[in-house]
Amino acid sequence: MNIRLFATGGTFDKDYDFINGRLYFKETQVPEMLELGRCSIAVDVRTLMMIDSLDMTADDREIIARNCSSCEEDRIVVTHGTDTMVQTAKLIGQADVEGKTIVLTGAMIPYRFGSSDGFFNLGSALAFAQLLPPGVYIAMNGRFFDWNNCQKNRQTGMFEELKK
Amino acid sequence: MNIRLFATGGTFDKDYDFINGRLYFKETQVPEMLELGRCSIAVDVRTLMMIDSLDMTADDREIIARNCSSCEEDRIVVTHGTDTMVQTAKLIGQADVEGKTIVLTGAMIPYRFGSSDGFFNLGSALAFAQLLPPGVYIAMNGRFFDWNNCQKNRQTGMFEELKK
Amino acid sequence: MNIRLFATGGTFDKDYDFINGRLYFKETQVPEMLELGRCSIAVDVRTLMMIDSLDMTADDREIIARNCSSCEEDRIVVTHGTDTMVQTAKLIGQADVEGKTIVLTGAMIPYRFGSSDGFFNLGSALAFAQLLPPGVYIAMNGRFFDWNNCQKNRQTGMFEELKK
Amino acid sequence: MNIRLFATGGTFDKDYDFINGRLYFKETQVPEMLELGRCSIAVDVRTLMMIDSLDMTADDREIIARNCSSCEEDRIVVTHGTDTMVQTAKLIGQADVEGKTIVLTGAMIPYRFGSSDGFFNLGSALAFAQLLPPGVYIAMNGRFFDWNNCQKNRQTGMFEELKK
Repeated sequence: MNIRLFATGGTFDKDYDFINGRLYFKETQVPEMLELGRCSIAVDVRTLMMIDSLDMTADDREIIARNCSSCEEDRIVVTHGTDTMVQTAKLIGQADVEGKTIVLTGAMIPYRFGSSDGFFNLGSALAFAQLLPPGVYIAMNGRFFDWNNCQKNRQTGMFEELKK
Repeated sequence: MNIRLFATGGTFDKDYDFINGRLYFKETQVPEMLELGRCSIAVDVRTLMMIDSLDMTADDREIIARNCSSCEEDRIVVTHGTDTMVQTAKLIGQADVEGKTIVLTGAMIPYRFGSSDGFFNLGSALAFAQLLPPGVYIAMNGRFFDWNNCQKNRQTGMFEELKK
Repeated sequence: MNIRLFATGGTFDKDYDFINGRLYFKETQVPEMLELGRCSIAVDVRTLMMIDSLDMTADDREIIARNCSSCEEDRIVVTHGTDTMVQTAKLIGQADVEGKTIVLTGAMIPYRFGSSDGFFNLGSALAFAQLLPPGVYIAMNGRFFDWNNCQKNRQTGMFEELKK
Repeated sequence: MNIRLFATGGTFDKDYDFINGRLYFKETQVPEMLELGRCSIAVDVRTLMMIDSLDMTADDREIIARNCSSCEEDRIVVTHGTDTMVQTAKLIGQADVEGKTIVLTGAMIPYRFGSSDGFFNLGSALAFAQLLPPGVYIAMNGRFFDWNNCQKNRQTGMFEELKK
């Protein structure tokens, strides 16, 4: 099974710039994570952008949706900042991605910090992408959510269903 | 969804004993990992044993199979040493676990070492346990394998199908 | 030998706030680092402030100098942001700290990031504080510098002597 | 100032062999540690052997003493297993190393484990080597000990003076 992974940035890929003391993006750390996870699935990683999801424009989301629609693979993982992950999931959910399983995932703590949830989330997102029926999903906190039934709780940083 | 997790030891949970310079088992690190992964699924962790899977006896495997059979949950993850994981999967596969989805997982590098595959595997194992139909599986290297079609390649440390 | 350690913040003690995605200060991580280093010297840790050294006012520096002057111990380590460490060292160097050995140290990468220089610097600063004659010093990059012959190279992030 | 560093192995440099699940030696991690510590002193690292200090023979210790005696530098750090560090220090202390400052250091936890004391010890050993008068010393737990007044407490794993 081939999986396409689109990296877009987010906390997942934030690194520390020791010259100016700020968090920034260098390049995606997903390939290193796949190696560390000793992953043997064929995952084709492409970086679409490396930005904070709060800085994402409508055009940026359009690019992500278009790439999901046009790529060959029908199993796709998108790494994404958590702040507007639901918004991007919605846009993809309304795009022409019929027959494809698309899973967005991210992290609350940068991978470069020793203790990130991103590595755990990447493992679960790849598993969900292999098994879920066609549709657009968010994989966070060990769970998956339908794109149209999910929100980030800004107090706790956890994802939850809209109605329980 | 409730998941039962049985910890049995293995490289996953090996710690370093600084007094005698040996690897040993203290207690399972799964709860810490679930917290770090910010996991919000209800995972009920029980330690059945804390041993190297090379030291596992037929009785030990019997205990694992019996617990899988008798526990309430029908979604189960077992953390296990990789060396005899396939053997234990076989025994569970032949036990009375009808209607249950049971996923064995482990690690090639101890979690206590900064760079373990175990955290990634735990994320994928929990995802597989939520979606796979009833049966006994092994989750390693980002993939899942059927209990009766899997082996560990001792040269590479990777899991693979018996026939490709 | 008793050593007094004053924590003032700096990159050394920056943590990641997963709710708003920013670096911030919670509390000093020096006690945890001393434990990890299995340090058996008596180090009395006091937090004077928890701030970025770019935000340090003349009053803040005054507080640090006064505490160095008034504390009982004559072996002192100050953890401090690197950006204005030299400035604070100068102020202490001109204060009434006769007979005291005072060593300022810090980090270019936060300790919470898995790969920080801070832990290495703390080990060297404590060693320098035990052996250097009375005076005010900066300990960075495995070396010590006199307070009046040191600058931070802002291109490389390394400390160096004024004249070579 | 030039420092010579002789690596001999010990817990400091133990790595995890994921194929057979044992701790082993690959090559010294000291150069990586010096880089991580952003060390700007000229440290010339040479590996003399990569062994557990419990396996060290009289010949091995002889090699270490001879190298300390014959090398150009008169500031030397030796990384060494803790179990027989005192024995080797004694042998060097009785060898012809007049005018040289020699500091042995090590770790209770392997550096490859995320949380090692080795990085802290290396920082302090390099500092002690720069300042201590000629002699043979052990640097552990943030302190230095004279070679003839030191023992490892096997219950606690801490180094201490013979008589207090």
